[in-house]
Amino acid sequence: MRIGVLTSGGDCPGLNAVIRGAVLKGTKIHNQSFIGIRDGWKGVVEGLTMPLDRHTVRGLGKQGGTILGTSRTNPFEGPHGGPENVQATLDRIGVDALIAIGGEGTLAAAKRLTDAGLKIVGVPKTIDNDLDATDYSFGFDTAVEIATEAIDRVRTTAESHKRCMVVEVMGRHVGWIALHAGMAAGAHAILIPEQPQSMEQICDWVQQVSDRGRAPIVVVAEGFTLNTMETAHSEKGLDAFNRPRLGGIADMLAPEIEARTGVESRATVLGHLQRGGVPSAYDRVLSTRLGMAAIDSIMREEWGTMVALRGTEVVNVPFEDAVGRLKTVPEDRYEEASILFG
Amino acid sequence: MRIGVLTSGGDCPGLNAVIRGAVLKGTKIHNQSFIGIRDGWKGVVEGLTMPLDRHTVRGLGKQGGTILGTSRTNPFEGPHGGPENVQATLDRIGVDALIAIGGEGTLAAAKRLTDAGLKIVGVPKTIDNDLDATDYSFGFDTAVEIATEAIDRVRTTAESHKRCMVVEVMGRHVGWIALHAGMAAGAHAILIPEQPQSMEQICDWVQQVSDRGRAPIVVVAEGFTLNTMETAHSEKGLDAFNRPRLGGIADMLAPEIEARTGVESRATVLGHLQRGGVPSAYDRVLSTRLGMAAIDSIMREEWGTMVALRGTEVVNVPFEDAVGRLKTVPEDRYEEASILFG
Amino acid sequence: MRIGVLTSGGDCPGLNAVIRGAVLKGTKIHNQSFIGIRDGWKGVVEGLTMPLDRHTVRGLGKQGGTILGTSRTNPFEGPHGGPENVQATLDRIGVDALIAIGGEGTLAAAKRLTDAGLKIVGVPKTIDNDLDATDYSFGFDTAVEIATEAIDRVRTTAESHKRCMVVEVMGRHVGWIALHAGMAAGAHAILIPEQPQSMEQICDWVQQVSDRGRAPIVVVAEGFTLNTMETAHSEKGLDAFNRPRLGGIADMLAPEIEARTGVESRATVLGHLQRGGVPSAYDRVLSTRLGMAAIDSIMREEWGTMVALRGTEVVNVPFEDAVGRLKTVPEDRYEEASILFG
Amino acid sequence: MRIGVLTSGGDCPGLNAVIRGAVLKGTKIHNQSFIGIRDGWKGVVEGLTMPLDRHTVRGLGKQGGTILGTSRTNPFEGPHGGPENVQATLDRIGVDALIAIGGEGTLAAAKRLTDAGLKIVGVPKTIDNDLDATDYSFGFDTAVEIATEAIDRVRTTAESHKRCMVVEVMGRHVGWIALHAGMAAGAHAILIPEQPQSMEQICDWVQQVSDRGRAPIVVVAEGFTLNTMETAHSEKGLDAFNRPRLGGIADMLAPEIEARTGVESRATVLGHLQRGGVPSAYDRVLSTRLGMAAIDSIMREEWGTMVALRGTEVVNVPFEDAVGRLKTVPEDRYEEASILFG
Repeated sequence: MRIGVLTSGGDCPGLNAVIRGAVLKGTKIHNQSFIGIRDGWKGVVEGLTMPLDRHTVRGLGKQGGTILGTSRTNPFEGPHGGPENVQATLDRIGVDALIAIGGEGTLAAAKRLTDAGLKIVGVPKTIDNDLDATDYSFGFDTAVEIATEAIDRVRTTAESHKRCMVVEVMGRHVGWIALHAGMAAGAHAILIPEQPQSMEQICDWVQQVSDRGRAPIVVVAEGFTLNTMETAHSEKGLDAFNRPRLGGIADMLAPEIEARTGVESRATVLGHLQRGGVPSAYDRVLSTRLGMAAIDSIMREEWGTMVALRGTEVVNVPFEDAVGRLKTVPEDRYEEASILFG
Repeated sequence: MRIGVLTSGGDCPGLNAVIRGAVLKGTKIHNQSFIGIRDGWKGVVEGLTMPLDRHTVRGLGKQGGTILGTSRTNPFEGPHGGPENVQATLDRIGVDALIAIGGEGTLAAAKRLTDAGLKIVGVPKTIDNDLDATDYSFGFDTAVEIATEAIDRVRTTAESHKRCMVVEVMGRHVGWIALHAGMAAGAHAILIPEQPQSMEQICDWVQQVSDRGRAPIVVVAEGFTLNTMETAHSEKGLDAFNRPRLGGIADMLAPEIEARTGVESRATVLGHLQRGGVPSAYDRVLSTRLGMAAIDSIMREEWGTMVALRGTEVVNVPFEDAVGRLKTVPEDRYEEASILFG
Repeated sequence: MRIGVLTSGGDCPGLNAVIRGAVLKGTKIHNQSFIGIRDGWKGVVEGLTMPLDRHTVRGLGKQGGTILGTSRTNPFEGPHGGPENVQATLDRIGVDALIAIGGEGTLAAAKRLTDAGLKIVGVPKTIDNDLDATDYSFGFDTAVEIATEAIDRVRTTAESHKRCMVVEVMGRHVGWIALHAGMAAGAHAILIPEQPQSMEQICDWVQQVSDRGRAPIVVVAEGFTLNTMETAHSEKGLDAFNRPRLGGIADMLAPEIEARTGVESRATVLGHLQRGGVPSAYDRVLSTRLGMAAIDSIMREEWGTMVALRGTEVVNVPFEDAVGRLKTVPEDRYEEASILFG
Repeated sequence: MRIGVLTSGGDCPGLNAVIRGAVLKGTKIHNQSFIGIRDGWKGVVEGLTMPLDRHTVRGLGKQGGTILGTSRTNPFEGPHGGPENVQATLDRIGVDALIAIGGEGTLAAAKRLTDAGLKIVGVPKTIDNDLDATDYSFGFDTAVEIATEAIDRVRTTAESHKRCMVVEVMGRHVGWIALHAGMAAGAHAILIPEQPQSMEQICDWVQQVSDRGRAPIVVVAEGFTLNTMETAHSEKGLDAFNRPRLGGIADMLAPEIEARTGVESRATVLGHLQRGGVPSAYDRVLSTRLGMAAIDSIMREEWGTMVALRGTEVVNVPFEDAVGRLKTVPEDRYEEASILFG
């Protein structure tokens, strides 16, 4: 059997370790061969491949990014998309089964393709940790670690200048990175999409900390929104909120906090720093295990499932249980973290 | 209510974060007061205390070690030991209930004391991750991360000199740190107490790697033993194994590997590096949550239980389920890792 | 003698190590006592002090920021400013001589005050490394290290997505951080204030790298400017350049590069990350030595001088040699780095 | 012209960056070609080569170790050694001139070879920083940083257990790494080969710290020796000093300190950790500049010289000024550091 491997969507620390885990177990234990599909579903649709064997994956465990490249192409779009075309392309490039490593969109596409008879096993990839069917996804731990170290760093500047620091982390729809990094770094407020807050509440937290003579640290997920149509009491503030965003939410919050509380405030947007570079040991182990489990699932012909972490075990979950549901931060976890606020 | 907190046994990254989590939730939510018991059970027996309030725990989340100090004293030994004396001392210093943060010994002692009527809740502490009743214990992730980074470092030296590097990590009775750090860093052999190996097998792995022109990396837990009474074929090797150990197991394996394979071999013993310093974000979050859960357990009067991680949840587990059983590396996890060997 | 110590201007990793070096040598060797002046020159003008002795500086070597606080107050402004008022305040709070740790503005103010008879010794502080009279200033090495690690990180994302990454680092007037971090991380273009470039040149470098199938990395100092009045060929580009900056120069360059070359481009602004946190070992050693040399200079009554690094030695330099001259990146150093471009 | 490049002696972070700097400048600016000599002088004597061009050095700046391999072979020994044989081999493999990257031994050999007419330029490599003709050598900064971080880590364990920690760092003949790491990490005693101390003095420092209720940190260079023939007052101590060393000097000091002071003491030997892994930004910049300067020296036919750092400049120094003289830690630098002791 020849197994194709693809990585799709935004890159994530641990992708290469998944690939390596699958290839090493597949070649050494199951005697299968592999082929790399380049640039995600685009490679499937267009038949872009690269060699993928034991030598290709040497030393990949600690390398960030993905050697296969990635894209946001949808395999159902375009003249060569759809199940029949994809199957034809896979036949042409000699792929018997596919390991698709990607996020919600990739898994949803994989589900539709397996429903149409294609042989696909999935590996969940979401740096935001927003897939419901797995306890944790790889890349998340690294992102939290990077964000935590960054907050640790800006804190010393904040304290020296008695400033409020607003640090923006990833999390378009869910606040897991903000929650964990904020708890780890001892933030005085954590703002996440699941829990809209008013400027009054945010400024109250900031003011409490400032009144104790300390420098307030606010961690905000990029997808956070204020819970009411706020009117800023300063021209500057208003302007920031009405203007189309060039920066992120932190760039808007910081001047507004300063205008309302009088506490000098600065924004830091971590952005791409959180996705790149050497994965944490936790993510390397998890990725390697998921990759190995993926090739095992191929051998067991568990088409239409993805591998997932449950407790300390790696299990298989049907695609339908994984897609269409966002794993949001539950109320009690936010309350737990909010004990540190203010 | 006034709650005493103690830390016992070897130090571990995250101890301070547990203390901080308990104190912050205890003071801000439950309106309880705290007192620090110094130097573990020794402080209980001798009545050594320090103030412990919201201000004491400021900034503790990222600080390694324990501000309370620690010792290996057993509360049942000595003229002031035993339940009655301990209760008397706690009454004298005004402690109504106790949070005991410690390993197997501490939890066993806490069990005997609660059986005798004392009010104690436990927080499991084992950097080796060898307690059965919790998925992971804090400190373990940091230790694995440090060990992984260390192995990454020595690998470049190994490759430049075409040497075999034997890296010794913690793990007296179980091989979790070796297993995870070895998988993360791509070790060519992982040697753990649960899986004795022969020198022949070890040297076979080393030779395979060397024959491919690469530098073999062997990760060994301090508690690993050879599976037979080996006789080394060189004077040097024999001597090393018969001599009382000044260094660790790695210091013995390296010359023996060199003598048998002809591959120049060096040992590195990580030792105390693995226990110290800033905890990883993972450990800071876990520790904070465990500390908060401990004070909640006190409020619910769940005496004789410890807090534990199960999946993504923190639960309570009776002491009797936590002590007397070592969480060893299961066979399938070792087999999974061994795919990377040789 | 009682010596006052102040830190002024933006914070910088190593400030606390300077303070610690001065206090330890001053108390242990010279038997002098110290007093901390809070919040820079503001504290001198307003008489704000804090205790500063051997115990205060315990463990400060590795702590970022400044325990004394800082401000951008000018001691010549306001009703209490000027030499006579400052001297009167120093007399009142019992300060016989002053160690002023700060940048060009601080040293210029210190010069005017010593010219008027005050007893001041300076320690140069500029994270940008832009003071001419010292080989390197503390904080610079840490900033370069942080920036280099950040560029290493974003590179993996860039390669996975075949994107151009534009990373903005500090350097309002000089490009030292960009030069060193860019060389260290292997940037394909380094843009610094001293060397204006055209969009054509920048895009040419980006295109060359992209044509080789790699992901271009552009490092830009915040003070970089294009060398001509450029007209962007896209609406988006024009808009970005005409709009008042909310983000930094990187936020403007990235869309313009993308518009001109067709290479997807992203900006990352490191900002405050570069000033905060634990200083590098290099900066800790340099800071400690400068602090010790400062108190020695006080004892030798070398008023009106600052301590400076020359080769491996710490020397004294008159204030007039240090102020009014910016240490820019020389042509040959930029040429040297530019060998790595494209 | 075709230029051979070799790396010799113990590996060092930055070797690959030197190679990359030379190759990039040589190919892009000087239009020269390169060939890699494998395994140091062994490759010269035996004619072992590998391709070395712009593509070979891609991404090498941050990679530890040396892609060329290294050995401790002396080019004057063996049947194929000596100037005539070496010249004949170089002719055979088509090498017109040689860049030799190595330590004192390599530079001494290079001197003898250039004296005999061979065309060689040197790049000094000593992680110990013990070459007199350069302010700093690459690799040293990385080693100091790693050692400093390690001492930071063990300190928290030391404080929790009120233990003395003896940390052994590299430095067979000189104490630069111990001096800088010890100053950076705030050690209470720094023991270096240049400054023998008595056990009495060492224990006095330890005792002072212990008496203040803190945990003593002793940093010792591997080449440190006691200044008198000491007789230990304990069997254990005596035994440790008389036994042939399996561990390092730290393994002998720790039990002796414990025996004499009663302060529980532990040893940590950093060993190979200090040589491996990703170079610091400082070392990457220095290495790149030295590599570029080396190829410039080749073009200027400055045979018999090595490149060196003086202040902020890279200069050429005749081999005879670089060899035969060890750059030891001067008295005043040790005195400066000793202010932190006890």
